[in-house]
Amino acid sequence: MTAFSRFTPLAASLPATVPFVGPEAIERQRGLAVRARIGANESGFGPAPSVLSTIAEKSGEIWKYNDPENHALKGALAAHLGLTPQNFVIGEGIDDLLGLIVRLVIEPGMPVVTSLGAYPTFNFHVNGFGGRLVTAPYRDDREDLDALLALVRQEDAPLVYFANPDNPMGSWWDAQDVIAFARALPPTTLLVLDEAYSETAPEGSIPAADALIDLPNVIRTRTFSKAYGLAGARVGYGIGTPGTVSAFDKIRNHFGMPRLSTEAALAALADKAYLVDVVGRIKAARERIAGIAEANGLTPLPSATNFVAIDAGRDGVYARAIVDGLMEHGVFIRMPGVAPLNRCIRVSTGLPADLDLFEAALPKVLKAIG
Amino acid sequence: MTAFSRFTPLAASLPATVPFVGPEAIERQRGLAVRARIGANESGFGPAPSVLSTIAEKSGEIWKYNDPENHALKGALAAHLGLTPQNFVIGEGIDDLLGLIVRLVIEPGMPVVTSLGAYPTFNFHVNGFGGRLVTAPYRDDREDLDALLALVRQEDAPLVYFANPDNPMGSWWDAQDVIAFARALPPTTLLVLDEAYSETAPEGSIPAADALIDLPNVIRTRTFSKAYGLAGARVGYGIGTPGTVSAFDKIRNHFGMPRLSTEAALAALADKAYLVDVVGRIKAARERIAGIAEANGLTPLPSATNFVAIDAGRDGVYARAIVDGLMEHGVFIRMPGVAPLNRCIRVSTGLPADLDLFEAALPKVLKAIG
Repeated sequence: MTAFSRFTPLAASLPATVPFVGPEAIERQRGLAVRARIGANESGFGPAPSVLSTIAEKSGEIWKYNDPENHALKGALAAHLGLTPQNFVIGEGIDDLLGLIVRLVIEPGMPVVTSLGAYPTFNFHVNGFGGRLVTAPYRDDREDLDALLALVRQEDAPLVYFANPDNPMGSWWDAQDVIAFARALPPTTLLVLDEAYSETAPEGSIPAADALIDLPNVIRTRTFSKAYGLAGARVGYGIGTPGTVSAFDKIRNHFGMPRLSTEAALAALADKAYLVDVVGRIKAARERIAGIAEANGLTPLPSATNFVAIDAGRDGVYARAIVDGLMEHGVFIRMPGVAPLNRCIRVSTGLPADLDLFEAALPKVLKAIG
Repeated sequence: MTAFSRFTPLAASLPATVPFVGPEAIERQRGLAVRARIGANESGFGPAPSVLSTIAEKSGEIWKYNDPENHALKGALAAHLGLTPQNFVIGEGIDDLLGLIVRLVIEPGMPVVTSLGAYPTFNFHVNGFGGRLVTAPYRDDREDLDALLALVRQEDAPLVYFANPDNPMGSWWDAQDVIAFARALPPTTLLVLDEAYSETAPEGSIPAADALIDLPNVIRTRTFSKAYGLAGARVGYGIGTPGTVSAFDKIRNHFGMPRLSTEAALAALADKAYLVDVVGRIKAARERIAGIAEANGLTPLPSATNFVAIDAGRDGVYARAIVDGLMEHGVFIRMPGVAPLNRCIRVSTGLPADLDLFEAALPKVLKAIG
């Protein structure tokens, strides 16, 4: 393939990798159809009916660009969390915000601290801006706060990523530990505290909305993609000091937010009863997934998220065989990317019919691969 | 405002500017309501009814991430234009693609050639990556191809932007001139040929889809935001050699495309009859806008787009007074940003009711400002 000859040396050096292969690509590559889509930590429960009504009601306005200031959504989030609109930045999912954060902070060669096996899309962006990833292993299947802090100090790193609850393991820390970690960081280190799964986390694990709001070196990221059931809408937000979040305005795609997505997020935020209901269904599905795992001699890990990591008891090759085998039955799941986490498979919560398929397929797959 | 103290020197040096102030922000700032939204080159005619049906039909799937490979949309575009899926990159509007292009090519201090007064969002991205804008003035209200080529050679510029048809003037070049320009560029200069308004351009002005497809140093950008009436959906695409467009995969937000937007674009592409119909209505609206201008002693410029630039005959202060005065009547329009283009106002095509408001307000405004 003939490409333009003068991309930057950094761009030219990057591999053509992707953070995740989508289920549609797997279907095409393997000639199989997904019947249970429980691999991408989406929400098969879908968004609230009130959200779908809002989309129907507002779809005729799709010819208009969205308000680039995201005034309404920032106001609604501020009211929801007891903060001010100036504490928010809106983006096309957390993924978009992660790219912008890396761009604001990282020049080629700079160290960036994260956990070995944590969110690949963050790493994708760090590599994309030429940053140097420095990683701490998980400890007891949790991100290791002490090790992350030590690495930050050792490297004088300008950026550190930490997710609470964690993906891909589903583990979490208590709020007080998270707060202590954030406050122990040097003010010259920006913490990305990724709270994509905050809605499904247990009591006491998520710091209060204002617990870190005085710190210019903390950005908390959240999303409508998980519990709110709007992954396809692409709405994420960051919480920080007005000074820090306003920096995004220097570089973000101001007209990047889709109009119906913004309307959907507003409606989702307003329907508090649905969120309570769906979080209950997510918890029930987690328990059922854990039960299916145990019934098959596997070990489910405790989860604060909308998925369950299941220890399959051997290595990454074995876990991969389970993932690939399930796909032959139309059950799409994923697994962590690196050892020792990749002894696990990762199953997203979903509708009872989806879990029925998983329950039926898992013993067949385990038997087949021996 | 206290901000994080260690943003990159480039990020810290950037001003908090925006390419455009949205109509919603103008409403809030001035306490006025927009009654005729004919300023952002959106399409008040809206998308096809078949597109709205598709959104309604597919909205229940919004819980799923979009296919990150954009397989279906690339295939449909390839069929539509007689190219291959590998010739396309999909982005969240052309704005998103422009940011990615600048990132792939520009390091701080590098020269980037464009026309003085051309698309501000391109300039925003160039500034955002530390590029140095080098501009050629318009000549006879068209971008000056000879001057752009001369600047590219003089500066050994790795990137040049040229829009055909042009925004904000609505002017255009014949396809043969565009092709000659592209082929005269050094192979070490990437041409962004922005064809956002290609659907409304006159016969003979848009190079055939395959006319430049052999050139690795050309990316043509197009959008569903204009004639297709889907500005709020945020779907743009780039056309180039497989080698060149695959470079985007190294850095783009792979899961950034909204699912319903992609479905909307697919439906829009399939409804060829609606496109023909709406292009006819856009042309009729252009003629009506021109007639209103002439009836008020102003000079409409010929337009190949979904808007009309109107020469108000004096300077930018006068044109600004017209823009601001019209807003007092609820008529939102815009104007070019720099002299001598800013002797003009820019009015987007829209529904008859919108143009009625414009027609009624313009003479009052002209009389009031004298």
